[in-house]
Parts: sequence; structure tokens; C-alpha cells
Amino acid sequence: MTDQMHRIALASRPTGAPTPDNFSFEAADMPTPGDGEILVKVHYMSLDPYMRGRMDDAKSYAQPVPIGGTMEGGAVGEVVASNSDAFQPGDFAFGMFGWASHAVIPANQCRKLDPAHGPITAALGVLGMPGFTGWHGLMEYGRPKEGETLVVAAATGPVGSMVGQLAKSLGLRVVGIAGGADKCQMATDTFGFDACLDHRAYDDASALRAALKEACPKGIDIYFENVGGKVLEAIIPLMNPFGRIPICGMIAWYNAGGLGANAGDEKDNLPKLWRTVLVNFLSVNGFIISNHWDRYPAFLAEVGPKVASGEIKFVEDIAEGLENAPQAFIGLLEGRNKGKQIVKVA
Amino acid sequence: MTDQMHRIALASRPTGAPTPDNFSFEAADMPTPGDGEILVKVHYMSLDPYMRGRMDDAKSYAQPVPIGGTMEGGAVGEVVASNSDAFQPGDFAFGMFGWASHAVIPANQCRKLDPAHGPITAALGVLGMPGFTGWHGLMEYGRPKEGETLVVAAATGPVGSMVGQLAKSLGLRVVGIAGGADKCQMATDTFGFDACLDHRAYDDASALRAALKEACPKGIDIYFENVGGKVLEAIIPLMNPFGRIPICGMIAWYNAGGLGANAGDEKDNLPKLWRTVLVNFLSVNGFIISNHWDRYPAFLAEVGPKVASGEIKFVEDIAEGLENAPQAFIGLLEGRNKGKQIVKVA
Repeated sequence: MTDQMHRIALASRPTGAPTPDNFSFEAADMPTPGDGEILVKVHYMSLDPYMRGRMDDAKSYAQPVPIGGTMEGGAVGEVVASNSDAFQPGDFAFGMFGWASHAVIPANQCRKLDPAHGPITAALGVLGMPGFTGWHGLMEYGRPKEGETLVVAAATGPVGSMVGQLAKSLGLRVVGIAGGADKCQMATDTFGFDACLDHRAYDDASALRAALKEACPKGIDIYFENVGGKVLEAIIPLMNPFGRIPICGMIAWYNAGGLGANAGDEKDNLPKLWRTVLVNFLSVNGFIISNHWDRYPAFLAEVGPKVASGEIKFVEDIAEGLENAPQAFIGLLEGRNKGKQIVKVA
Repeated sequence: MTDQMHRIALASRPTGAPTPDNFSFEAADMPTPGDGEILVKVHYMSLDPYMRGRMDDAKSYAQPVPIGGTMEGGAVGEVVASNSDAFQPGDFAFGMFGWASHAVIPANQCRKLDPAHGPITAALGVLGMPGFTGWHGLMEYGRPKEGETLVVAAATGPVGSMVGQLAKSLGLRVVGIAGGADKCQMATDTFGFDACLDHRAYDDASALRAALKEACPKGIDIYFENVGGKVLEAIIPLMNPFGRIPICGMIAWYNAGGLGANAGDEKDNLPKLWRTVLVNFLSVNGFIISNHWDRYPAFLAEVGPKVASGEIKFVEDIAEGLENAPQAFIGLLEGRNKGKQIVKVA
């Protein structure tokens, strides 16, 4: 055990897309666990689009990261010291350890990892927050029915690939949207989507809409929303009566700098959307998975074995080194990753 | 019984707000009921905002009225001839008789009126489609809880006044929005709202928002949406976490002529709304009451006695003469009516 740890702090708030200057890589004294706390050496940390929201000083479901504060995030690591009966040194744990090499955290805020559920990185993606988000949003708000059509963007990401694979197994037609031909191929070949459209191949929402119309000849019953922007604009008029739109994110708008940029070309997009919700009797639900951890055991019981058996597949992009987390995060927001973006810290 | 009937046909499709030229008052031969049909002499017909949508040639939950076709609408009248066991001459019936002095219609598409439920005009408003819309939308999608705050616009209309009175009786704080000081006074004095704001007194969405913030010190849990436009823009940032937005209409946008006009000043309104739905975990449901007639007996059983006892109040604006229906309808879209707009036909 060394005397020093490292962390990545929020140096300044981004205007639009984050840049490396918004982050600082810092050394700090190794912390000591107090009563009921554990010291964890982080092995892998997760990068997720929601972290962009934490960098803004805006009202949201969570407090913003303060300037100078450690960037927040889920991670997995090895317990190196424990003042809690719940963990022994050598145990592996998941928790909100942040962008850091080590963390001290109350033991009751961590979850011990079960090696039977596959590699520990799975706790950050397919069996962690993103996979759980996809499962809960689809089952609770998407209410999938055999024969229906579902569309999900960021199709090869850990949320989209979970949503698509689950919907496929329930007998839906599943159409993905992704950025780049290679990701589209991964969506169909690896994850078994019926089709996947490269949104970069379409200049605007109406061109994308025309392609979606062909890919979804019976219209769209479920649009699992995680991107917003051009994709949402394209989809609105294609929603079927009684359609459902679970919303877990809107990555296209996260970098929009107060939403002035990237907001869509037309000022009547809101009335168009609202009218469609009315005349097609749509059900739209925003949710954040942290309100629903009571359902996590049910998720793990249902999906864990499917991941172990290979029925549900997952893909991980692993960047090397804590100091490279900012670049990997910037790449994530630009869609450069293919699967679940992870940083190998130790 | 005369040989002639009268009707109002759709002469042309409006661009923006309808004008008298869009309608034509016509005479026609008196129709004869076939097997299972009844001939009804219309006494009162209903005018409702949804009829504006039927005048456009746009995809909606219902077919548009064809050019030359009789304007659609609910009405109450006396059965003058019957080829059905379900009705006798002299019975009163509610049905979609249209903007007409007489109608022939299959008996099984009509509902016999029970005199115990008050005046026959009640079947067009407080105990008809609008009142039922308010009850169903509030109870099914609004999910009201004691101590919460509800906002509804068109507060003195037949939907808004039902929603507000029901919510009040369930222990919610109820804030109305209406056009004009006289309507606001009616909302508080007649219908018992806690407060009512005159949207005409505020230049833009942010001025209205500031007033709403004062009127709703604990934020807004339920926004019962029937207007859209400036009111919606004002409300979006005031919604509380886990808030609900049932949508049954958007009268502010009905006249928007393809939605280019009246669409809101800012092109980022859609991302702002979408972001609020996500970060506040909102539940948004569009619905049209014609999909839910199976619930009508439950509505009548619950609300009918409250109307009969005077616990739930209603106000009607009655225009005289079928030929004046277009002017009354134009006035309804401009908010000139105070209560439920009805036309006395016979």
C-alpha cells in the first residue's frame, strides 16, 4: 500500500463539449477508513453519459460535482482495508468510488460482487447500472408485447444492447440506431437486432425518418429514448397509437451548452411532439435507475443467468489508466466507443 | 314533422383560426330511419375544441370531416321515429348527431338519457364527454394525492372545472389558469379553486411562470394539459419530481396552422421539456376519452350523484340557433365562452 492515491477532479465547468482542460489529474494522501468504512483499491471504473450532467451547475436529480471535487462514478475494486464486518480484505466491491485510484466509503453503500456473475467489469455494464436501466425501463415503462416494433439508439452501448436483446427475446422487431457502419454491424451480428441504421448517413431528421419508416413497416410501438436530438425528431411522427417512450437519457443534448445549440432546427418541434403524444395516446416516462434499486435483485435473478449462459451478450471498450479517463469520456460523448466504456485503473 | 332538415357543412379547411366562410348552412331532405335506426330531433348540440382538429386534413385519432360533410359533434335530442326496440318516440338520447337539426343514426350508437341525472344539457358537459375526460384523466393518469398541487388551464371550461373540483375534494391545492379576470373569479368563487391566474395579464411564458411559482409554493405535481402553448412553457420548469401530465388537448395550438405560428418562441423548448421529463421522472400520458367508454358507468355512478346534489357545479353558455354554431365555435377557440359551450338547436 502506497502513501498516495490519485484522482481526477473537475477543474472547470464545460461550455458545450468537455475538453481535457475541464479535468485535472491530482495526487492526494491515501485516506484511512473510519468506523464502518472500507478502503478500496479501484480496478475498473465506469464512464457513462450521465456524468456530463454532473459537470453542469444545473438543477437535476443529483447535485453537480463541485469545482475541485472528484468526478463521480461507479467503479469496482478490491477491498484493502475494512472496518466493517460486511467486507474482508480481498473481497471485490462495487460502489461510487469516483474517478480515483482509491476510495474510502461506508461499507453499507457498497455491493459485494459475486464471482458467479462473470468478470467484475460486468458490474459496471451488462449487470450494472446500464443493463439494469435497460431492463427496468423496457419492462416497466416500455411494456413490450410480441409482434411490436422497438427502436433504440446507441444500440451497441450497454443500455441499448440490453434493451434490444431483451426485446428480441420477447418476440419484438428490434431496430437500432448507431453512429457508424461498424457499430451497426455489431448491433445486427453480435446483438441480433433485426436492423440498425447509421444516423451519420442521414443529413437530417427527415432523411433518417424515411429510412426508419422502411425499417419499421408497422410503425414504432416503443421508442427507448437515450439520445434525443435528431433521432427523436425523426421518430415522433412514426409512433403508433398507444406507443410508449421510456426516457433514460438524451446524450445528443448533454453537450448542448444550455440547449441553445443542438436543440433542433424547428421551433415547432415541441408542439409537434406534444400533439403526437395526444393523438397517438402515447405514454412517456422519465426515470433514473437510482430510484429503483429495490428492483435490482429481480433484475439480477432474471438477467444474470442469461449473461452467464451467453444468451445476453455484452461488449466492453477498456481504456488504460486513470489519467486517460477524461479522453475516454470525451470520446464516449462523441460516440467513439463501441460497447460499454470502462477505464482500467489498476 | 317537416320535410326538411338543416345542417352545417365544412365548406373549406381553415388556415389558422376558422372563419365563418369555412362553414355553410344548408337545407336537406329529412332522412328516414332504416332497420335498427332512429330519427332524432336535436335540441342541444355541443361545441368542443377537438372539433378544430377534425377540420384539418391531418393524421389524428379520427378521420377528418370531408369537405361538404356535416360537422361532427355530440348532441342531445328527442327521438321522433324509431325502428329499434331500444328507443320509443319521446325518449331523449345522446349521440354523435353532428351540427344538424335532425339525424338518423343506429340506435346502438346512442345513449338514452336518464332524467334523474339533471337537465339534458348535462349530457354534453359535466356528465358527458368533457366531464368524463376530466375525471378519467385525473384519476387514471394524474393519480392525485392529498397535499399535492394541481394546475389546470381553461379552468372554467367543462374539463378544467371538473378536474379542479375533483382534485379539491381530494385535498389537493388547485390552481387554475383562465383568460380574463371574470373567468378567474368564477374559478375561485363558483368552482372553489384556491387560486386562478389570468394568462392574458402576462406577456410571456416567463412572466406567467413567476406568477405560477407564487401560486404554487410547493411546485406542481399534476399539470392537467388541455392548452399547450405559453402555459405549457411556463409550467415545464415548475414540475416536481415524479409529477404527472395527462394530456387531453392543446387548444392553444389547434389554430396554429401547421404549428408554425404559435409554436413558442424558442427552438429549444422541446429539449427543455424532454430534459424535465427525464430529470424529474415525469409521467406524460396522451389520451382521448373515446378509447375509455368502458369506464363511463363508473364515472356516472361516482360523479352523477355529486352533480345532482350540487357538490360538483357546472356552468353552461348557450348560444341560440344552429345557424349561429360557427360563430359560437370561433368564440370557443378564442376563449370567449365562460362555461360549457352549447348551442340550442330546437
